Amino acid sequence: MTSTLITNIGELVTNDPARQTADDILGLVADAAVVLEHGQVAWVGATAEAPEADAYVDAGGRAAIPGFVDSHAHLVFAGDRAPEFAARMAGTPYAAGGIRTTVAATRAATDWELTGRVAALVTEMRRQGTTTVEIKSGYGLTVRDEARSLAIARQFTEETTFLGAHVVPEGSEPDEYVALVAGTMLEACAPHARWIDVFCERGAFDADQARTVLAAGAAVGLRGRLHANQLGPGPGVQLAAELGLVAVDHCTYLEDDDVSALADSGTVATLLPGVEFSTRQPYPDARRLIDAGVAVAIASDCNPGSSYTSSMPLCVALAVREMRMTPAEATYAATAGGAAALDRNDIGRLVPGARADLVLLDAPSHVHLAYRPGVPLVLATWVGGHLLDG
Amino acid sequence: MTSTLITNIGELVTNDPARQTADDILGLVADAAVVLEHGQVAWVGATAEAPEADAYVDAGGRAAIPGFVDSHAHLVFAGDRAPEFAARMAGTPYAAGGIRTTVAATRAATDWELTGRVAALVTEMRRQGTTTVEIKSGYGLTVRDEARSLAIARQFTEETTFLGAHVVPEGSEPDEYVALVAGTMLEACAPHARWIDVFCERGAFDADQARTVLAAGAAVGLRGRLHANQLGPGPGVQLAAELGLVAVDHCTYLEDDDVSALADSGTVATLLPGVEFSTRQPYPDARRLIDAGVAVAIASDCNPGSSYTSSMPLCVALAVREMRMTPAEATYAATAGGAAALDRNDIGRLVPGARADLVLLDAPSHVHLAYRPGVPLVLATWVGGHLLDG
Ligand SMILES: [Zn+2]
Ligand SMILES: [Zn+2]
Repeated sequence: MTSTLITNIGELVTNDPARQTADDILGLVADAAVVLEHGQVAWVGATAEAPEADAYVDAGGRAAIPGFVDSHAHLVFAGDRAPEFAARMAGTPYAAGGIRTTVAATRAATDWELTGRVAALVTEMRRQGTTTVEIKSGYGLTVRDEARSLAIARQFTEETTFLGAHVVPEGSEPDEYVALVAGTMLEACAPHARWIDVFCERGAFDADQARTVLAAGAAVGLRGRLHANQLGPGPGVQLAAELGLVAVDHCTYLEDDDVSALADSGTVATLLPGVEFSTRQPYPDARRLIDAGVAVAIASDCNPGSSYTSSMPLCVALAVREMRMTPAEATYAATAGGAAALDRNDIGRLVPGARADLVLLDAPSHVHLAYRPGVPLVLATWVGGHLLDG
Repeated sequence: MTSTLITNIGELVTNDPARQTADDILGLVADAAVVLEHGQVAWVGATAEAPEADAYVDAGGRAAIPGFVDSHAHLVFAGDRAPEFAARMAGTPYAAGGIRTTVAATRAATDWELTGRVAALVTEMRRQGTTTVEIKSGYGLTVRDEARSLAIARQFTEETTFLGAHVVPEGSEPDEYVALVAGTMLEACAPHARWIDVFCERGAFDADQARTVLAAGAAVGLRGRLHANQLGPGPGVQLAAELGLVAVDHCTYLEDDDVSALADSGTVATLLPGVEFSTRQPYPDARRLIDAGVAVAIASDCNPGSSYTSSMPLCVALAVREMRMTPAEATYAATAGGAAALDRNDIGRLVPGARADLVLLDAPSHVHLAYRPGVPLVLATWVGGHLLDG
């Protein structure tokens, strides 16, 4: 593999702890250059001091950021729910909707169809600057369908999450289903998964059920994460903090105790503003979390029911507009924050030794991600040092 | 020029009055085909009945819509105002901002620089499915700078608008400036413009000044349009209705009399939700307008101060999320609505004889424009029958 030197980067977001200051969480470098070699970042510094390389790219004064780390996505499904979305937006009832529609379509789809759908969504994400995506199961809800969902997801990412405990499938008894998830289904899924997740919410799974599933996962080496406090207050966030989970996702309805528990445990709160945009629900209070010292990530939650966006740039813009994060906080949360939520320090930052995941923006500053909402600003993306077609 | 047959369009939005029904303002055709020839739509119908052609495109079941008509954009400027945007989002003061910053940068720029900026923005818009864009002057505010702004804009669109009455420039006396705009400046600008526009708002120009400018424009053949009722109630919407203008833009603060005046006059109310997104102001009440029978358009207002998005798909998504338009209403407003706001019936619809401006979406339905916010869904765009690179 040859080395590539990218010069004349007007603003480089490094997220490098060694460059961060109280006023600059992004560790910005002006007039920067980066060398990518052997799939990693080999060197970061000023263009004027850049070493030689085999290939050269002139960024023309544009900004570069670490690739987005989308730490929460549900990409293995069939069908779509556009009519249900339109009815929700119009405030009219829609009888046939809900997750069960997607479960039925997913079970009926061939492996080939599901793989093609995931491939299309991952391609779409990469064109928007996402270089790492976590992919959950959760629309199969049978041993066979959860296991094949994860086997398919594994072709696209190491960050696969077993979410058999997404919802109790029609016709199942809750405790029996939890036993299945924590038993036979887990056994079939564990070889394809790094994480285990539970939708801990009224109407889905309670704290005891979540404990059971997470403990079973831990026993076979899967690390835990939770969907919690999305639709109302609940025990999920406290449970995540108590168990020292890496991340707990949604965090829309929080009590003061929840916030302090997260600050104490260091659990990353992953906010998913695409959900609130697409369901017209209130947004989580990011400022309260940040001001309390909680680590925050932003992710897309890409799924056909509540947030069918794959756009991390849109999530950044929403975080700024609707959750009052600064453009710098939102950019950090969508890159380094996502990496923290996956317990990864080789991604989400541009420092020597990190994976060479870099996005060149057609803009002079990361601020444009929020200043120019909806505009496809990703000009070029390198994943592991490989330049993708734009 | 050869003819192109696009077949297998899963859902074709025609906006054809002959196909519209009470339940379907988009005049949808399923399993549709379109023939493009001599820069126009030559035929529309079912794939099964499609005629022969010289070239064939298989839409693979995807949806196609008329190209977006963005009837309100300020693209001739230099500089950007990202720090001002970031300060506004953070709620912190920012001394140096405002339109005068852009005016100074625009005056200082060369023709070459300004032309390059417009070209970049128009290219960006086309990649997002905009096939017609109106471009205003208004950041020159001298005879020379307004005239060259319009001469530059004219290279990109027939829909150019003289907006010398954007703001009273620093150091000018208001009545003297209005006399300049309606006199020497108009004389220099009229050859490059189709429209004349006034920012009729407290702190900018009042109704009498707007009348003066619009009347002077009408005397040399320019048709009037107005920026009105953006920041508070005011006389602009009534004036637009009284003068029978084709369109009045913003319409955020309306009294009941304003709404009924628009319904009676047939003046199109152009809503610009990118502005409210990027300034955190309340959105205009689209439902009130639509329910009163007012014709509504959606446009980007692309400009560096209050709405630096060029994305009509984002504006459609915001119209649905924030202004409670249905996906069909928003799609119509962003295509046929924009055409009506420019008094054009050769664009914004796919009917025989219309300009061959067609956007193929990587989605099965127009609903996905709102269902999949921020996602670049435009797969291919034809402008006047020419396929653009994606
Ligand atoms: Zn989720
Ligand atoms: Zn405007």
